[in-house]
Amino acid sequence: MAKHAIVVLLLSIVLFILAQQSSSSQPFKPISSHRAPKFLGGFSTSKPYHDHSRNHNHQRLEWLRQYPYETRYFEQRLDHFSFLELPTFNQRYLISSEHWSGPGQLGPIFVYCGNEGDIEWFAANTGFVWEMAPSFGAMVVFPEHRYYGESMPFGSQEEAYKNAATLSYLTADQALADFSVLITNLKRNLSAEACPVVLFGGSYGGMLAAWMRLKYPHIAIGALASSAPILQFEDIVPPESFYDIVSNDFKRESTSCFNTIKASWSALISEGQKENGLSQLTRMFRLCRELKNTEELVNWLDSAYSYLAMVNYPYPSDFIMPLPGHPIREVCRKIDGCPDGTSILERVSEGVGVYYNHTGEVNCFELDDDPHGMNGWNWQACTEMVMPLSSSPDTSMFPTYDFNFSAFQEECWTDFKVNPRPRWIATEFGGKDIMTDLKTFGSNIIFSNGFLDPWSGGSVTQNVSDSIVALNTQEGAHHLDLRAATAEDPNWLVEQRATEIRVIEKWLSDYYQAKGASLLSNVETGDRATSM
Amino acid sequence: MAKHAIVVLLLSIVLFILAQQSSSSQPFKPISSHRAPKFLGGFSTSKPYHDHSRNHNHQRLEWLRQYPYETRYFEQRLDHFSFLELPTFNQRYLISSEHWSGPGQLGPIFVYCGNEGDIEWFAANTGFVWEMAPSFGAMVVFPEHRYYGESMPFGSQEEAYKNAATLSYLTADQALADFSVLITNLKRNLSAEACPVVLFGGSYGGMLAAWMRLKYPHIAIGALASSAPILQFEDIVPPESFYDIVSNDFKRESTSCFNTIKASWSALISEGQKENGLSQLTRMFRLCRELKNTEELVNWLDSAYSYLAMVNYPYPSDFIMPLPGHPIREVCRKIDGCPDGTSILERVSEGVGVYYNHTGEVNCFELDDDPHGMNGWNWQACTEMVMPLSSSPDTSMFPTYDFNFSAFQEECWTDFKVNPRPRWIATEFGGKDIMTDLKTFGSNIIFSNGFLDPWSGGSVTQNVSDSIVALNTQEGAHHLDLRAATAEDPNWLVEQRATEIRVIEKWLSDYYQAKGASLLSNVETGDRATSM
Repeated sequence: MAKHAIVVLLLSIVLFILAQQSSSSQPFKPISSHRAPKFLGGFSTSKPYHDHSRNHNHQRLEWLRQYPYETRYFEQRLDHFSFLELPTFNQRYLISSEHWSGPGQLGPIFVYCGNEGDIEWFAANTGFVWEMAPSFGAMVVFPEHRYYGESMPFGSQEEAYKNAATLSYLTADQALADFSVLITNLKRNLSAEACPVVLFGGSYGGMLAAWMRLKYPHIAIGALASSAPILQFEDIVPPESFYDIVSNDFKRESTSCFNTIKASWSALISEGQKENGLSQLTRMFRLCRELKNTEELVNWLDSAYSYLAMVNYPYPSDFIMPLPGHPIREVCRKIDGCPDGTSILERVSEGVGVYYNHTGEVNCFELDDDPHGMNGWNWQACTEMVMPLSSSPDTSMFPTYDFNFSAFQEECWTDFKVNPRPRWIATEFGGKDIMTDLKTFGSNIIFSNGFLDPWSGGSVTQNVSDSIVALNTQEGAHHLDLRAATAEDPNWLVEQRATEIRVIEKWLSDYYQAKGASLLSNVETGDRATSM
Repeated sequence: MAKHAIVVLLLSIVLFILAQQSSSSQPFKPISSHRAPKFLGGFSTSKPYHDHSRNHNHQRLEWLRQYPYETRYFEQRLDHFSFLELPTFNQRYLISSEHWSGPGQLGPIFVYCGNEGDIEWFAANTGFVWEMAPSFGAMVVFPEHRYYGESMPFGSQEEAYKNAATLSYLTADQALADFSVLITNLKRNLSAEACPVVLFGGSYGGMLAAWMRLKYPHIAIGALASSAPILQFEDIVPPESFYDIVSNDFKRESTSCFNTIKASWSALISEGQKENGLSQLTRMFRLCRELKNTEELVNWLDSAYSYLAMVNYPYPSDFIMPLPGHPIREVCRKIDGCPDGTSILERVSEGVGVYYNHTGEVNCFELDDDPHGMNGWNWQACTEMVMPLSSSPDTSMFPTYDFNFSAFQEECWTDFKVNPRPRWIATEFGGKDIMTDLKTFGSNIIFSNGFLDPWSGGSVTQNVSDSIVALNTQEGAHHLDLRAATAEDPNWLVEQRATEIRVIEKWLSDYYQAKGASLLSNVETGDRATSM
């Protein structure tokens, strides 16, 4: 009987805890600023990308020697969709005609849809496009996204980011219209109207590439949308998918690593509540300044793990941070490899060093930039790019969290004095039932995804039709395929890129054939036909 | 030798005259306000449609008894494409669920894309949609176009039409976004997300229907775009096609009629230059007020002939004006039937009476409304809807005229303080090479056209693909197919409508099949597939 009573008591406790956790009105929520999927916005600073990368300019010069391009500027309307008289702005674009076979041969034009950052950085990190261009006789164009890099309305970033009114034209539709107007103009000036355009893009740039193929099929004949989470909106995919995939990336390396991290959050909160706990944590995690609360540290770790999953590449890279190959494996080695008796928090601190200090050059760590700062992606996340992320109590190693739109809305109002429109993207670009919608509609899109990438959960990972195809890799991470080839590329990556090239070749040959056929049919049927 | 000299002299004169006429810098141009294809904008007044139609309200009540609908209002953003804080406005829409089979049966929703006028008038003149709805178990929705009818931003037409700033959100993209947001919201509120939407539209409304199917395929499964001149932009089709088709409509009835009208312009100008010539013309044409110049009369006649071609229906109608069946035939009968010795101008005056005074109720004729007036279509024509129309010296019966963009631009600046964007529509919606662009892209659009309709020259009149089809009728005029069936319908019209119904049935059955299949495949493949 006593045994039964204990079981009942324990069950009650468990049920009580579960009830506490699943209550959406007051969830266990140590992460209060969990409002925006800022992980897409890691590139949105307009400063030179990596403060740690002192030889940025040197690298750029190296790149230019290999793939010389010109930098040009194109005058754009601030608002394509109204006739308000507003100041125009100069959109920067990089262009290389070196290998272009020209209008006479209908030489293709490869356009990378610039995303939330400096376009030079994307150009340097999208080697695949540059490497394939010569064999296609293709021109390469990298237009910059408005409000990023040098493409600033109102003359300066300070003016452009001043308030909600000046920022109000930072939207995906306006960016797509920029690309469309620029390409149309460029082609006209080169008498290259008939030259086929192929779009490329990764991450948010991949979303733009896919959407542009759907909205402007007359401007681009196809799009390679790499790691493009176009379904991460409203309730199209489960909001837990992102953190579940990050968590699985750790679990597949080591269950104990996953468990240590999962256990670390409550340890961290306990420690923070102690007297001098925050100072202890500050020292333990070698932070440059004193912690104000544990939440700061939670966000900092959350950010590290999430980015690690995105750039969990099979070879050393310097995309967001300089990192070893298989960085999550390295993190888990550190965490698991500590001597017996090492505390959970010390293990986690060791592990995260792989992300924040792989080169060993950093003496202390800066916490994240102000998550409420007036940066471009934060604005986009607070307006259109409302991508709900939650963390499940079971499958995620992160603190449990339910996306709370009201709280999110309040934060956006506080930060920007703007109201998010969470339903706009799915209304404007679709996604609710993409398989049915696009079964007989649209063509020529590759959705490429690596299943280690947490954004793959919000991407198209099934073939939609013969010509809207999903190219998935089990071991790939965030738009790895777009990077330049390296000697360390595994076979599956070499194969993935070869497949992409074959598919693009097919688009082009279909286009040339249709073009030939249509030229012919215009000649044959000068008169209007098919009457009743 | 003398004979040769005369031939050479005559040839020189002919060449001189031709050179004068073909000089685009100073063409023979009696029609200076030839700036906008206002013929699409004949519906854009927001007053009750026809001042001559005194029993408008009575007709409306008749209609309501037959096809009862509710009038509702939906709060819309003024600007869907920025995050400016602007006042919202109420979009009117008519809705009838009487025959709807409901969400359980995935009952279809028929949406008419409201064009440049009062939506009730379009509802009353689009009987085809109402008549076919019951057999489809379809809901019928007629959303009104912003800035027309009761759907006025800023609270009133006066405020909405105040200046370029208040008018600046009157664009096709904004209208399409209105439709998309409204339909999405409506479906959500009715738990009808899976119910297929079919779009309808005639003229500018047909352009909107086609563009909406292309831009929002996830919102509508197909579109019947009737008499939709989506190619009448930039240099996609010859700018002469419109007036050539009007002229042919007269020529096919009678060559002498065509010749009389063609000769009338110079007679008219000669008359106008005489002392008291304008008074003579005023009396001869029974105008209510004295002519200020011959140009006014030229425009008035031009307008009559052009509209006659658009509504050259095979039975009596009351679309723009109350008219007999085959009205051009009637006009030519009048012109040709005058007693010998009747002057050209008297003949033309008799002829045009068929258009302006078929009922015989009018004592004198009002000239056109102010062509520079602040009406909605004039604004649209001065901003996006720049549809160049020219009149060729040979094939047209109208005065020779070359569309002159600079002059057009100046007039728009004078009228509205706005600069037209003549390339925007083709950039945004395509059309330059629609056959190639849409060969493998897009689906489920019917472009229906009657070859008597002058807008058919700017429409899609060839099949693009298996599912983007052209349905042409030799004897049809401006979106005749959308009108209610009458006892006088010729066989070809009955057949055309039957074909349209068959095609729409096919769209729906394909959709239901895909929907069933996709539901199944979601069950079968819970996991993500197709990896490398």
